[in-house]
Amino acid sequence: MPILLATDFDVAEQRLWRELLQTELPDERFVTDRQTVDDATIDIAIVANPPRGALSGLANLRLIQSLWAGVDRLLGDPSVPPQVAIARMVDPAMNVAMAETALWAVLSLHRGYYTYAAQQRARHWQSLPQRRADEIAVAVLGLGQMGRTVALRLADQGYRVSGWSTRPAEPARIDACTGDDALLPLLARADIVVNLLPLTPATRGLLCTRIFDAMPQGASLVNLARGAHVVDADLLAALDRGHLRHAVLDVFATEPLPADHRYWLHPNVTVLPHAAAQTDARSAATVAAANVRRLRAGESPQNQVDRVRGY
Amino acid sequence: MPILLATDFDVAEQRLWRELLQTELPDERFVTDRQTVDDATIDIAIVANPPRGALSGLANLRLIQSLWAGVDRLLGDPSVPPQVAIARMVDPAMNVAMAETALWAVLSLHRGYYTYAAQQRARHWQSLPQRRADEIAVAVLGLGQMGRTVALRLADQGYRVSGWSTRPAEPARIDACTGDDALLPLLARADIVVNLLPLTPATRGLLCTRIFDAMPQGASLVNLARGAHVVDADLLAALDRGHLRHAVLDVFATEPLPADHRYWLHPNVTVLPHAAAQTDARSAATVAAANVRRLRAGESPQNQVDRVRGY
Repeated sequence: MPILLATDFDVAEQRLWRELLQTELPDERFVTDRQTVDDATIDIAIVANPPRGALSGLANLRLIQSLWAGVDRLLGDPSVPPQVAIARMVDPAMNVAMAETALWAVLSLHRGYYTYAAQQRARHWQSLPQRRADEIAVAVLGLGQMGRTVALRLADQGYRVSGWSTRPAEPARIDACTGDDALLPLLARADIVVNLLPLTPATRGLLCTRIFDAMPQGASLVNLARGAHVVDADLLAALDRGHLRHAVLDVFATEPLPADHRYWLHPNVTVLPHAAAQTDARSAATVAAANVRRLRAGESPQNQVDRVRGY
Repeated sequence: MPILLATDFDVAEQRLWRELLQTELPDERFVTDRQTVDDATIDIAIVANPPRGALSGLANLRLIQSLWAGVDRLLGDPSVPPQVAIARMVDPAMNVAMAETALWAVLSLHRGYYTYAAQQRARHWQSLPQRRADEIAVAVLGLGQMGRTVALRLADQGYRVSGWSTRPAEPARIDACTGDDALLPLLARADIVVNLLPLTPATRGLLCTRIFDAMPQGASLVNLARGAHVVDADLLAALDRGHLRHAVLDVFATEPLPADHRYWLHPNVTVLPHAAAQTDARSAATVAAANVRRLRAGESPQNQVDRVRGY
């Protein structure tokens, strides 16, 4: 039975993925155009930001394998068949890429490199007081695959790392806590907050004035999860009044970030173009193919999304 | 016998160091003004960029303990008594600070964060192709205390790290080579070159067109050692013609970097104000005090400089 590829890829990306998947699964047939096959024959869809409606009416669909880690857009599309298993992309290479970005942002904040960049543009030569990593408290929000990888890599660099998650996380080599009551006390001790939560109804808009006020004067935010976690007006207000020192933002409510958005030229905001951790086709195609093989062998796909929980 | 403190510190720094040293060495007497004691009674000098002539004529001086890791300025001062032992600062906290800066620079180059910073100023949203750390070859020049710490930390992040030193280095968990013949082949394979060599007559001006031409098109330079390692006109030419992609420079022939220097506003140069690894007074005072105690106990001071070798 054919596998539908439903993505927003350009021609080159589409070709790359198709070749990699075909190499992994030589006996499978991949189609990108539903018109070329009978809908009833499609039992697997491999998707990356599929256009709305791309999966509607596929009566025999059994697995939707996402090539992206975040599935909030997929879950928000009412045309996606409700009973079909959805699997997220869990790729160790992507977790490492996310940890690299988090480490870069934390190092930049800890060692003053954003300040030095501003000083360079002003041709101003001034070294800043230097703190040791073990004097910097980092709170990682979200302790899933990515959050855990990030937290452990930061701890390996000597940072004082604590983690928080909406439900109890698997144990790791870091202090971890759970639930609303634990969040504000954790934030009160944090020099840097790194957000890696999944976007769910419970976490949408979580990063608002209440949270920023709980963080100490001069603390910084690194958002690598989803733009909708942040109430933008609240963040800008906290930065403008100097309560928060800096924000590193990889994700935004609207992407690409609109040209007239204040974030672009704010002196205390670092804008990244949703590049913190891109899916690496070479390793992700292997991960996706493994789930296809599991389904064909009558096994349950891995990394299935809990639709009620939302991730 | 009194210990002379000869530094270019401001009043607050001077007070901090004096308090820390006095706490470590409660039985010693520290002086900052030679006029207040008989020159013949001074047997130890603790120095940080001492003014020229600050140590001349100290007939009974037995140890000059530098608070900085680099002693090239001290060795270049003909008024420093020639037979006296000079000890450099070797402080693990300073090695770690250097490794943090090197890692930040390598991450920034590897993941395109300097490019994203330029894109932000132009309000341009464009993600770049993402490579894995094991696809990035980093060459570390200089495998002393700092070079080794940097090389190992980069290797821990997954980078393909090779090291080069002017004489055979102590073994470590990285590929290392030595001597002129090995340098150009190493550079030819490097995406990023990190310089942590000592400044000696043999390494002054080493980073010149010959070296930059040996590096591949699109490679980058990170200079965390001394400005005089670099022939600035050659580096600017290599950047201007697009052969080198980017340079991260913490050190300069003249510091502070003069306001009219092209480095300040060059789009492919990151300027840091000699802040890659500052001496941390808290740990360095302990290291300096240990050498004072060794001398008083009749033992040989640690981390002595070989004046012929130059470091």
